[in-house]
Amino acid sequence: MIGKTRPISEVAEYLGIDAAQVIPYGSDKAKVSIKALKGRPLKGKLILTSALTPTAAGEGKTTISIGLAQGLQAIGKRSVLALREPSMGPVFGRKGGATGGGMSSLTPADSINLHFTGDFHAITSAHNLLSAVIDNALFYGTTRLDPAKVTWKRVLDMNDRSLRNVVIGLNKQGVARESSFDITPASEIMAVLCLSESMDDLRERLDRMVIGFTRDDEAVYAREMKVTGALLAVLKDAVNPNLVQSIEGVPAFVHGGPFANIAHGCNSVLATKMALAYGDYVVTEGGFAFDLGAEKFLDIKCRQAGLSPDAIVIVATIRALKMHGGVAKDQLETPDVEAVKRGLENLGAHLESAARFKRPVVVAINLFAASDTAEEVQAVKDFCAGMGVRCAAADVFGKGGPGAEELARLVAEAADEPSPEFSCLYGLDDAVEVKMEKIATQMYGADGVDVSAPARKKLALLEKNGLTGLSVCMAKTQNSLSDDASLLGRPRGFRIHVRDFEIANGAGYLVALTGTIMRMPALPRVPSAEQIDVDEDGRITGMKG
Amino acid sequence: MIGKTRPISEVAEYLGIDAAQVIPYGSDKAKVSIKALKGRPLKGKLILTSALTPTAAGEGKTTISIGLAQGLQAIGKRSVLALREPSMGPVFGRKGGATGGGMSSLTPADSINLHFTGDFHAITSAHNLLSAVIDNALFYGTTRLDPAKVTWKRVLDMNDRSLRNVVIGLNKQGVARESSFDITPASEIMAVLCLSESMDDLRERLDRMVIGFTRDDEAVYAREMKVTGALLAVLKDAVNPNLVQSIEGVPAFVHGGPFANIAHGCNSVLATKMALAYGDYVVTEGGFAFDLGAEKFLDIKCRQAGLSPDAIVIVATIRALKMHGGVAKDQLETPDVEAVKRGLENLGAHLESAARFKRPVVVAINLFAASDTAEEVQAVKDFCAGMGVRCAAADVFGKGGPGAEELARLVAEAADEPSPEFSCLYGLDDAVEVKMEKIATQMYGADGVDVSAPARKKLALLEKNGLTGLSVCMAKTQNSLSDDASLLGRPRGFRIHVRDFEIANGAGYLVALTGTIMRMPALPRVPSAEQIDVDEDGRITGMKG
Repeated sequence: MIGKTRPISEVAEYLGIDAAQVIPYGSDKAKVSIKALKGRPLKGKLILTSALTPTAAGEGKTTISIGLAQGLQAIGKRSVLALREPSMGPVFGRKGGATGGGMSSLTPADSINLHFTGDFHAITSAHNLLSAVIDNALFYGTTRLDPAKVTWKRVLDMNDRSLRNVVIGLNKQGVARESSFDITPASEIMAVLCLSESMDDLRERLDRMVIGFTRDDEAVYAREMKVTGALLAVLKDAVNPNLVQSIEGVPAFVHGGPFANIAHGCNSVLATKMALAYGDYVVTEGGFAFDLGAEKFLDIKCRQAGLSPDAIVIVATIRALKMHGGVAKDQLETPDVEAVKRGLENLGAHLESAARFKRPVVVAINLFAASDTAEEVQAVKDFCAGMGVRCAAADVFGKGGPGAEELARLVAEAADEPSPEFSCLYGLDDAVEVKMEKIATQMYGADGVDVSAPARKKLALLEKNGLTGLSVCMAKTQNSLSDDASLLGRPRGFRIHVRDFEIANGAGYLVALTGTIMRMPALPRVPSAEQIDVDEDGRITGMKG
Repeated sequence: MIGKTRPISEVAEYLGIDAAQVIPYGSDKAKVSIKALKGRPLKGKLILTSALTPTAAGEGKTTISIGLAQGLQAIGKRSVLALREPSMGPVFGRKGGATGGGMSSLTPADSINLHFTGDFHAITSAHNLLSAVIDNALFYGTTRLDPAKVTWKRVLDMNDRSLRNVVIGLNKQGVARESSFDITPASEIMAVLCLSESMDDLRERLDRMVIGFTRDDEAVYAREMKVTGALLAVLKDAVNPNLVQSIEGVPAFVHGGPFANIAHGCNSVLATKMALAYGDYVVTEGGFAFDLGAEKFLDIKCRQAGLSPDAIVIVATIRALKMHGGVAKDQLETPDVEAVKRGLENLGAHLESAARFKRPVVVAINLFAASDTAEEVQAVKDFCAGMGVRCAAADVFGKGGPGAEELARLVAEAADEPSPEFSCLYGLDDAVEVKMEKIATQMYGADGVDVSAPARKKLALLEKNGLTGLSVCMAKTQNSLSDDASLLGRPRGFRIHVRDFEIANGAGYLVALTGTIMRMPALPRVPSAEQIDVDEDGRITGMKG
């Protein structure tokens, strides 16, 4: 066991990575060239962490992932983390970063939460270069794209409501048309980078991205803009996974950052494989709850990359269970075992979903030592026992790895079990409506899916162009199993409303937009940015982890 | 003399910089903490390189700057470069990067021309964070800003014509209003970062940026948005100068990248001072020709930073002189000494301008060995002799430092002369019209300045708010001494047309927009991006230096 941080070059050395493949960014961050993957067997066990439906009480999924990896290290296992990079937008908004908390954190947290090694900036630049080239081609009339049917937008890594609906190209500076900005984690180039296996694969995926349609509704592909080489030049460093560590010295590949509500929500395939090549137990995540990040991890990432998890961890907190059980946010300190029991319906739904993938499941109770009672914790354990699922409580925030040893033992035991062959929830040959129906009924507990008239029209356009044999990436609120953020617990008797589709052919999926979810978040009335500052020693203060 | 590249840590060691202040970005780039400036006297001589009016033939100012620094090294002087960072936008457009050429280049050129150490991305993010916060405050009604009088825009480091005139906040997502994107080198935050002396200075400048006006025409300052601390957090790494080197191993601080046509065109004050603290002869640049970059270097940067150049170098090429003498671009290979002589009028104008600042001037003829004749070169030398100005020809592209030894000797000799006290062209107390008149008549050779009715109205608004005691940063085409890009040579009998002002109170200047110049460039019909690719070894191909 290490138990403390080391210079990043020593972390790489501990993993056995050839120093020639390690590019330092200061003394605490590095990129590892994808060449370090060549010829390496993927020997590690893959552990997927997900959670119950998140609430305002917080579930601490990343904190558990980090604490679990530290716990595995504490019991003598060679553990490695494979996590997503945070987006800068929410850091200034409300949510904060994504580097864990307390004794289960990544370091250097501030740097990871802001520019890190520049991957998001590279993706933003590549995306917007293609956008500028498209509008330039419209201006010069050198493309067969119909200006009214351009589907490629622009992106910024910022929560900027005012850019959701814009008109560009006014005053004869360009071709005037309606358009939009998404946040960078929703960029198809983010997804493409995260799902690519190599530079060649990246090139092919960029080439086949759909950027719009002709007047005759023929799909136009990015390759027609002739800048795939330039996009690769912009992305060539970003494609290399980043190596950092937890505060107890567990190596962490932190790479790629699609959101799980509006995108596919998993770190890069290359980072996951790098972790599997150099570690024995790899802890990775699907963003938000099981219905979003884990479903996409399994049906999109695992399907494309030929991966499958050896164990699934589902994180719950007593506080979140209480909120699902109907308790208001300001009453969460009051012990209420009955509310916990009511809230377990939500956890139960996700456990049923997980069971469909035939992998051992462990429930991790993320303890808030100050308020959780033994009776409340026991209620969760009893529930899990009733469902035949392993369960352990862990105080990872307060105690780090040593607070997660029991959890680590259960997870290692589960991961070491032989698993039956992995199968996805739906087949790529299923009709798009069937794919959505399977996700909605089996993962969300919905009665079915309603597709709006404009979305049906879009589907017909996709069919005409042979673009329906893809996965479906549901864009849905993270705050409910349904597409209505206000429905906590385990909603029943609801339908999912698909209002539109976006095409991510390079990423291999269609995005189905449900409910009112937006792909560009907004700032709240009082943004977190107001609390952030730099002190006299150059340290950042007031930033949420 | 070194003559070859070394690991960047050794370059820093050679300069005598404390290793604790050096943050590596790979083995070939580093940031040097501004703490390394504390208590260090600025002992070096400062050499400002500028040029005649640029033409399509190319003048190679950066190539001469690098070659001159290498030549100084070759004759035994301890030389250091202080240059601007390239913008990514023009790399994909037409112009290419800004890392010199041939044997007088910076390394790693491709990295410097793309993301480098992320400074432009940090500036873009900080700028757009403030933009998002402003529109959020309009949305919630928590600001006294008038939505119709917001002057703060958004920026991208991209040539994107379609973003020059936009409408944002449509469909009730925000407050609908007209707005615009500039290219990042035109961001006031770029200027503020480049002119700041410390983190405290940076904070004060960010606070006092004007973001718009109330309904009653009162100026609203950035500090009212309460995110200056967050902006500092975003900028805290970008403020540290970057250290790279030339291919002959001359240390180069490459930091900050405002354009000289639409902004003030100088690398950061902190990088220049770092170079002066650790080198004996510092070669720096004012972008484009003397009328733009050098005038702004002297009247904006030197005035604010308490600097003054010890010598001024003006770069000319035989080919550019021929174009100023009326020769078409496809005829430049044909010897034509008469055309060179006619073109010398342009050089003469810049030499007269330089003389007003009472600093020794050296003309550097940047040789194109394949086409320049001895007679043509002699014509330039004779002309300079007639004006009492030192002149040397140098083949820096073909031969590097050894090709610039005569030039280096003349420049060192000039820089070692005692100089009279430095004085700017205009006083800050002069009326804005007087400041512009002095620049236009004494630097451009104009008969005077015409200010449009809307610009006069803007001036009245600035006066009402006490915002006129600033420098004036002229935004003017780089391709002519006039504001009409088609007038080569030395135009006479013209006036400068000011159509609008932009306020950069944090940077300490007003931007006067002349002619038709835009602060967001566009891509040409066939963008350079189409030529760029990445080869099988991961090397970028087809990118202009």
